[in-house]
Amino acid sequence: MHYSFAPQTKNYASSAVRDILKVTQQGHVISFAGGLPAEDIFPIEQVKIAYEKVFASGNSSLQYGLTEGFVPLRDAIKAKMADRGISSTVDNILVTTGSQQAIDLFSRIMLTPGDVILTEDPTYLAALQVFRSYGANVISVSSDEDGMLPEDLKEKLETWSPKFVYVIPTFANPDGKVWSDERRRKLLSLCQENNVLILEDDPYGDIQFHPEEQYCPVASFDYDHRHVIYTSTFSKSVVPALRTGWVTGPSEVINMMVQAKQMNDLHSSSIDQQALYYLLRDFNLASHIDLIRSVYYERMTIMRDYLNKLGPDLFKWKEPKGGMFIWVEGNEHLNTTALLNQAVEKGVAFVPGAPFYVNEPKNNTFRLNFSHSTPETIELGMDRLISVLLKPEVVK
Amino acid sequence: MHYSFAPQTKNYASSAVRDILKVTQQGHVISFAGGLPAEDIFPIEQVKIAYEKVFASGNSSLQYGLTEGFVPLRDAIKAKMADRGISSTVDNILVTTGSQQAIDLFSRIMLTPGDVILTEDPTYLAALQVFRSYGANVISVSSDEDGMLPEDLKEKLETWSPKFVYVIPTFANPDGKVWSDERRRKLLSLCQENNVLILEDDPYGDIQFHPEEQYCPVASFDYDHRHVIYTSTFSKSVVPALRTGWVTGPSEVINMMVQAKQMNDLHSSSIDQQALYYLLRDFNLASHIDLIRSVYYERMTIMRDYLNKLGPDLFKWKEPKGGMFIWVEGNEHLNTTALLNQAVEKGVAFVPGAPFYVNEPKNNTFRLNFSHSTPETIELGMDRLISVLLKPEVVK
Repeated sequence: MHYSFAPQTKNYASSAVRDILKVTQQGHVISFAGGLPAEDIFPIEQVKIAYEKVFASGNSSLQYGLTEGFVPLRDAIKAKMADRGISSTVDNILVTTGSQQAIDLFSRIMLTPGDVILTEDPTYLAALQVFRSYGANVISVSSDEDGMLPEDLKEKLETWSPKFVYVIPTFANPDGKVWSDERRRKLLSLCQENNVLILEDDPYGDIQFHPEEQYCPVASFDYDHRHVIYTSTFSKSVVPALRTGWVTGPSEVINMMVQAKQMNDLHSSSIDQQALYYLLRDFNLASHIDLIRSVYYERMTIMRDYLNKLGPDLFKWKEPKGGMFIWVEGNEHLNTTALLNQAVEKGVAFVPGAPFYVNEPKNNTFRLNFSHSTPETIELGMDRLISVLLKPEVVK
Repeated sequence: MHYSFAPQTKNYASSAVRDILKVTQQGHVISFAGGLPAEDIFPIEQVKIAYEKVFASGNSSLQYGLTEGFVPLRDAIKAKMADRGISSTVDNILVTTGSQQAIDLFSRIMLTPGDVILTEDPTYLAALQVFRSYGANVISVSSDEDGMLPEDLKEKLETWSPKFVYVIPTFANPDGKVWSDERRRKLLSLCQENNVLILEDDPYGDIQFHPEEQYCPVASFDYDHRHVIYTSTFSKSVVPALRTGWVTGPSEVINMMVQAKQMNDLHSSSIDQQALYYLLRDFNLASHIDLIRSVYYERMTIMRDYLNKLGPDLFKWKEPKGGMFIWVEGNEHLNTTALLNQAVEKGVAFVPGAPFYVNEPKNNTFRLNFSHSTPETIELGMDRLISVLLKPEVVK
């Protein structure tokens, strides 16, 4: 029997994220590869209590629910959005199975093969995989450390008439970049002038190390709510296993995404949605996020101090202002995909940078995750990694 | 701002199932419309205990999981498949957010606009919506009460070279039909001869009223595991809020679906998957299914006895052998979509049959759900419905 899959399956990339998750489930390798939050500070007791409240609320809590999501949870998300300067209504919030599903559903309702999408380069590889699975032509916009360069963005908006621009303006994956306020506003005004939508992916916004700085989502500047589709998740601020994210934007777009979600899975787990509602209602999430910030900051500084030992000449990297990752660039001869095998032999893993690139990949880059490992494990893993990175064939 | 959605969104039907779920959440109308299981017998105490076991297992239970699903749960599903005569391995089982997601992911990896799918007529409307959302051309095969007619199936397989044949052979939605063993085998052999896949949707197979009869899934005859993709769910036998279904079939197909699911939502809620595993391990699900069978049978007989009052001339229907629905056909002048408004005014709802049809709809049909309402509510609702059905303009 020959299986004639749809032609677009040829665009399915080998599943880098999934393979990474598999590696991290093996015990002996210290993994700086995945984007996993710190397990040791999960608020498991509070999560447990929240589920108890769901079951105490009676049998109807176990029935089918609405495609749009549990109404009281959407109301709580509306309040969270207001804290981020984004005004929304219960009706233009859709609860999704992680923000990954929001990226997928939005792509599903927007894209036909050959459509153009503009992104940063490098950017989130699982988003690239989604866009390409719908046959999109992904084109990157030149950036500096403050975000996309307005001139190049303007030219590409006019040349390509893209379906949308995909951005992660706060603690980007993989490179941890934070856009300046000015570039965020410029992105929006250029997209408004060209009638192009923006998909703003903000999974890490809560995890900032310098509370005195303020990073306003692009969506917070979109006063008439016409141009920005904003998605975020509780996977990083509460726990990933809940798989609960959300998306908000123009009601025409959200309504179409609701129809797509109905066909996709009818609705996300409503037990989890109800538990999350009780958690947001009764648990001090803000103080838990403060804990995450301080723990992640400490872990980042440990990793940073090890990287400093490499000296400024051989490896380039920037201290991240938040999020979960440090992005490192080695000398031009370095191939981090080949290096990964040596590292795994030594008992440590990272993600080679190549799959995050839209265009010609920089094979001398890699991403380190500092959130998942304890300080002791980071020290042990960085010792191993440094010994690999300082081998003669790497530093030549 | 004009939103230029992808062309395939034009195939998105108005969301009949979703609208039905919305109606059922209003208090005053007795709804025989949705496909909701009986809430009053949900094993909520056992579900609660299962979640407690998840949290007792430690913080790692709240971390990201595998796209394929929680391994011990897949192992338990393998055992359940063996009970149904289907041999599978942990590696060719994918856990999904309800069987709806299995239908969607399979369609996603198989279909391009213009591809042909063969189905029964009428059939599950949310599956029709999925197929059409991918631009498929759905063609119906003639059936009698035993299943698809082999002659017509053969001709259409040869004429159309369809991508797959979609069937619900046991207690079909909407008409409750059960295929004969012979027709199941004939479907498989014709598809084998023509190298065509079968998508077997079996959400209701557990809910059978005559335990002395045996209904073997088509997949159980597919000894070399090459032609049948089989999907089922725990939404009907445990609780819907878990949103946990699964799919098994040829490993090439399942592997491609795993890649699609990774892009779609990374993985389904792993808290729910772990809870379901403990539930299957420690709870007597077989005896709970026996309870469901006896409760649903009682409810069906109450509804049946009311329908009998209508007499055999005006309305035609068959006593179902399982599942959740009775399918009724009125006289040729009846328009059940118009009738629904009158019924809702009287405080009772059903689903008009039209959206379940592939071809020219029979507007004189409707579907009644007997599982969700208690006996007392069924009596009250059927009193209301009978009074609407026996109005002069309906029975003329």
